Amino acid sequence: MIRLFLLFLLLNFSSLSAFTQRLLRIQSPNNAIGLTVQHLPGGGMQYAVSYKGKPVIAPSGLGFVLSKPAVLLTQFTVTAVDSSRTDETWKPVWGEVSQIRNQYTELILTLRDKGKSGIVMRVRFRVYDDGLGFRYEFPKQGALNHVVVADERTQFRLTADHQTFWIPGDYDSNEYLYNATKLTAVNAVAAAVKEKDIALKTVIGPNAVQSPLLMKTGSGLYISLFEAAVVNYPVMHLQLDKKTLTLTSQLVPDAVGNKAYLQTPANTPWRTMLVSDKAIDLLTSKMILNLNEPLAIADPSWIKPQKFVGMWWEMHVNKATWQLTGGKHGANTQNVKKYIDFAAKYGFDGVLVEGWNVGWEDWFGNWKEEVFDFVTPYPDYDIDALTDYAQKKGVRLIMHHETSGSVTNYERRMDAAFSFMVKEKINTVKTGYVGRIIPRGEHHDGQWMVNHFERVAQKAAQYKLMVDSHESSRPTGRHRTYPNWMASEAARGSEFNNAPTLGITPEHTTILPFTRMLGGPMDFTPGLFHMRLNQFDNSRTTRVRTTLAKQLALYVTIYSPLQMAADLPENYEQHLDAFQFIRDVPVDWDDTKVIAAEPGDYILMARKGKGTNNWFAGAITDENARDLTLPLAFLDQNATYEATIYRDAPTADWDTNPESYVIEKKTVTAKDVLKIHLAKGGGCAIRLVKE
Amino acid sequence: MIRLFLLFLLLNFSSLSAFTQRLLRIQSPNNAIGLTVQHLPGGGMQYAVSYKGKPVIAPSGLGFVLSKPAVLLTQFTVTAVDSSRTDETWKPVWGEVSQIRNQYTELILTLRDKGKSGIVMRVRFRVYDDGLGFRYEFPKQGALNHVVVADERTQFRLTADHQTFWIPGDYDSNEYLYNATKLTAVNAVAAAVKEKDIALKTVIGPNAVQSPLLMKTGSGLYISLFEAAVVNYPVMHLQLDKKTLTLTSQLVPDAVGNKAYLQTPANTPWRTMLVSDKAIDLLTSKMILNLNEPLAIADPSWIKPQKFVGMWWEMHVNKATWQLTGGKHGANTQNVKKYIDFAAKYGFDGVLVEGWNVGWEDWFGNWKEEVFDFVTPYPDYDIDALTDYAQKKGVRLIMHHETSGSVTNYERRMDAAFSFMVKEKINTVKTGYVGRIIPRGEHHDGQWMVNHFERVAQKAAQYKLMVDSHESSRPTGRHRTYPNWMASEAARGSEFNNAPTLGITPEHTTILPFTRMLGGPMDFTPGLFHMRLNQFDNSRTTRVRTTLAKQLALYVTIYSPLQMAADLPENYEQHLDAFQFIRDVPVDWDDTKVIAAEPGDYILMARKGKGTNNWFAGAITDENARDLTLPLAFLDQNATYEATIYRDAPTADWDTNPESYVIEKKTVTAKDVLKIHLAKGGGCAIRLVKE
Repeated sequence: MIRLFLLFLLLNFSSLSAFTQRLLRIQSPNNAIGLTVQHLPGGGMQYAVSYKGKPVIAPSGLGFVLSKPAVLLTQFTVTAVDSSRTDETWKPVWGEVSQIRNQYTELILTLRDKGKSGIVMRVRFRVYDDGLGFRYEFPKQGALNHVVVADERTQFRLTADHQTFWIPGDYDSNEYLYNATKLTAVNAVAAAVKEKDIALKTVIGPNAVQSPLLMKTGSGLYISLFEAAVVNYPVMHLQLDKKTLTLTSQLVPDAVGNKAYLQTPANTPWRTMLVSDKAIDLLTSKMILNLNEPLAIADPSWIKPQKFVGMWWEMHVNKATWQLTGGKHGANTQNVKKYIDFAAKYGFDGVLVEGWNVGWEDWFGNWKEEVFDFVTPYPDYDIDALTDYAQKKGVRLIMHHETSGSVTNYERRMDAAFSFMVKEKINTVKTGYVGRIIPRGEHHDGQWMVNHFERVAQKAAQYKLMVDSHESSRPTGRHRTYPNWMASEAARGSEFNNAPTLGITPEHTTILPFTRMLGGPMDFTPGLFHMRLNQFDNSRTTRVRTTLAKQLALYVTIYSPLQMAADLPENYEQHLDAFQFIRDVPVDWDDTKVIAAEPGDYILMARKGKGTNNWFAGAITDENARDLTLPLAFLDQNATYEATIYRDAPTADWDTNPESYVIEKKTVTAKDVLKIHLAKGGGCAIRLVKE
Repeated sequence: MIRLFLLFLLLNFSSLSAFTQRLLRIQSPNNAIGLTVQHLPGGGMQYAVSYKGKPVIAPSGLGFVLSKPAVLLTQFTVTAVDSSRTDETWKPVWGEVSQIRNQYTELILTLRDKGKSGIVMRVRFRVYDDGLGFRYEFPKQGALNHVVVADERTQFRLTADHQTFWIPGDYDSNEYLYNATKLTAVNAVAAAVKEKDIALKTVIGPNAVQSPLLMKTGSGLYISLFEAAVVNYPVMHLQLDKKTLTLTSQLVPDAVGNKAYLQTPANTPWRTMLVSDKAIDLLTSKMILNLNEPLAIADPSWIKPQKFVGMWWEMHVNKATWQLTGGKHGANTQNVKKYIDFAAKYGFDGVLVEGWNVGWEDWFGNWKEEVFDFVTPYPDYDIDALTDYAQKKGVRLIMHHETSGSVTNYERRMDAAFSFMVKEKINTVKTGYVGRIIPRGEHHDGQWMVNHFERVAQKAAQYKLMVDSHESSRPTGRHRTYPNWMASEAARGSEFNNAPTLGITPEHTTILPFTRMLGGPMDFTPGLFHMRLNQFDNSRTTRVRTTLAKQLALYVTIYSPLQMAADLPENYEQHLDAFQFIRDVPVDWDDTKVIAAEPGDYILMARKGKGTNNWFAGAITDENARDLTLPLAFLDQNATYEATIYRDAPTADWDTNPESYVIEKKTVTAKDVLKIHLAKGGGCAIRLVKE
């Protein structure tokens, strides 16, 4: 840590007022990002952010309303200013790159409440070349032990009415389609009303939106407002004041309306913004990860990225049911054996089995506390036999724990459930939180649930289990600390292809990496090969709005160390040549290059398989056909590669001809530039094997 | 079950109205209690109760407001009327008598909502000779599966402004002193304001009171309104309408204001009333127990009534502290060894140890979730060594689990905590729930907590553990079903002798058996021998407002299968002659005779020790000196008994001379009548050993 020189100015603006205004300024290591902190004459603290000298965040307020002790923390005396530089490198257990540089300039303001409370608070800023984060810290002190946060008063005041990619602020769901409008055109309630397929919505109001919030300025600057390391604190949504173009922190309340219960020493999550004039910079940023604490698992050697198939899409397309009754129970021994055979034949690590356990007959919609016990299989599901069978075939079952939102029930059974997994040699669990939370009055995104998700990761680590959480709060980089928390859904995933109202638009997957995925891997469950979803139910009009080649490309553009091949074995067996890409694509990488990207339009990236010399490229587009170029400069010089290109056929079109693709092989070198044509809703997946 | 004849009358009250009014009448086996059910012309159902022909409950309404489905269930069509008689006898695992007769007349009305919901509900009445109970039942039916109860509309309309013994309606505390006023003089808020020593109060309003509610009519009838078998339902408090003298069920709400979540088939607890013209009948009634389900534990042989001493009162009188810091930690190895020595020397079964585990430095008042882990002793407490030491001495440690109201935390650690107990050969746990409940927004008396207490009893049974719950909802006879749930505090117990504001009045213990104790045993912790509580803190003015002899008598008048000798060993060693009664008195009985009793004034009862020929009598009085007579007719005829009488000395007085007592021995027979003089705040304890 290097002590920095700080520009500390005392300026008199006598023409405006008689006040004395103090300014602190700090720059990112390469000077791209500038932070200014102002101590206002009345005691208020404001920060402002610039990018390459131009304002990005206008002076914006900081502060709190505490309800215990009942103190308004918005006016301060500055008692100390510290700064330092950090430049370090660390290796993630798994990820998109094999090592990550953490380089920032830090500024710490120590503030004392100007009122009589005597409370001391720190604001810690870390300024990176691609953005910044700041958090509030309450040190251990006589004046403050237990704290109840009534409200956080963090502002993000924007400089213009930017184009914004937003979803409605909601305490319980993040499974919305993105809306792209001007900030002042946000209408979260109207957007939510259109969403008829979300199981549970708790919409905050017309002007509340969720983070990560992506904006693009008129001058082509990309801004993402988000948070990192949400631990023991609720999720922060954002309340928009259209008149002042100001977003203010909207913390998710608990059952009695409080926001957070803290005990000093305590800190908030990092409030973050990424800023760049190049969209691709957002996709390679590691700032969110860097703002999380280092690995907390002493020996992470048991944590393994995986590809899996599973008993799941059958239920969505009405071939089978989760519940036993009705005669179409999917998770029966014979059926799951077929999945194990399929996984073994094609080299998958795991077989997810949903609907294996008693309770599905009455699991949803009634705020019922005792639903599942997580250890009792249906009578037609011989889990012991299947465990043996899978083991012989070199495959593992993947556990499914649907809580139906009854988290008290899950928590009191979690040890038994995890012990059962260990007994059955299952090392990965997909958790689900569909429905209203019990404890009643709590929300998916509240502090209590944030703590629950963290507890699951911690307890799972004790049992050496990996977690894939669905319907959880969205990730904020916690997988740096607990890499056994492999992936989350926490956004609109592929299952919504089968939702009757809005489904998944072709552009959706070009927005996810710029928004939800900034926080961590998504279990999107790509790989659908059969696009009309009426295979087992003629009445269905739902469909997948991509080409088949785009489904392949998603394995590259949507990063996750847990990737599902979501479609039915029989559908894959009709396209084994295309399926080969899913078999080949890694789920762990040494390097990632984003070649071109524009949120809502297209993404083109290439990744190098962990511990190999092979690269995989993925290109996706929205509803428009598009031509992209892929310079292969990232390949080793003086080497040749065999490229296998999975591309849309010339007549492919998500709407009229989605399953038409071409597979071709070429020999290429680093000097080549591949031309890639993407159909409407199309994509392209490329495997490059060093010869 | 015998099919009964029912008087079913169709009467026209043409002078009053053109309505047709239908009446059902049923009598208790001995005809003392009469029940009338009226089906009003509009569809409303009313019941009325008489005692020996005189009205006790005027026609009172029945019904519900459901919020899911949203149905007002107050007007019905009667679709079936069934009745029967039951007369059976059962043996409790432990108790005040060795067998219990369950004799009642039953009436079941099957009702269909007059509205369009199609909901069917039953009201089941059981009419006993000493009272009656009724409950609502929702059978499994197509029209009703999941039910959310918004309100229950059960009324108890009284016939006059009775003298009433009440405590304020409160969702979180039942630790109030009783108030004795006319019904119309109830002011629950004013009464609660005076109570400055209750850790947590959630007072409902000026007219809400708790049950059991005891009333005495002008003509000398005793009425107790209460409930039995509160399972999967909130506690019922009572809202008083002073104009109509009507009490209406006031269910405790959950965090979002709902009262109960049910799934058909479901039923409410029994709404009960005991009625008699003799006060002593209330004390011998077994109706509440009879209305509970039979024993649910296959082999209850491990459930053993016990007497214990413990590391507890030391903290109350400021000799020691729960927490480690401060230099006065009570639960250190050496100190607890002394208690084990004392217990072994004087024949006690157990030694309760509070303050043994890490967390007491910051355990109360901050709605903190992670307080105790229930398995980590303080470093000065060598639990393994003490377990060995206790075992050698033939004594067991008693575990203490203070949750501080953080029940989510307790539930997720309960298996580990109970396993730890088993490892340490501890078979009894005192639980505590001091403070606001987590899940936040829930209350001690709400459905979620009622279910928690039941879960603790069930899980403890799985581990063969006995439970003594403090700060729980008050018992409603659940110890018939789970006799390992031995006792509860759930009222103002002896610890309030040390509360600075109101303390415990001399009359308090003459009211408890008529109110709180109708639901089950109370861990009152009697046996205080040192009445001025300034032994270790000169500044204290708190004191015990009884004579020493009364402390002995409480072991007879307050029934519990777990009885503590609450005072310090050194205080007992100053009065070993009196202490002998505590050593001798059983905690399990073959028979109980209540000789004389008047709530708020005095109680005199005698009990026969389980499996022995010995009787023990106890007499207590309020602030008035009193002379009672004890006819010994309950003794075996033609036998002589040695009576050891522990009585107030002639000059004894709770205020001026509390520790003055006389012990005398006499030979007596069944023909003798003992004259007993009780000092102000005094008592008398008698041991009768057959020669």
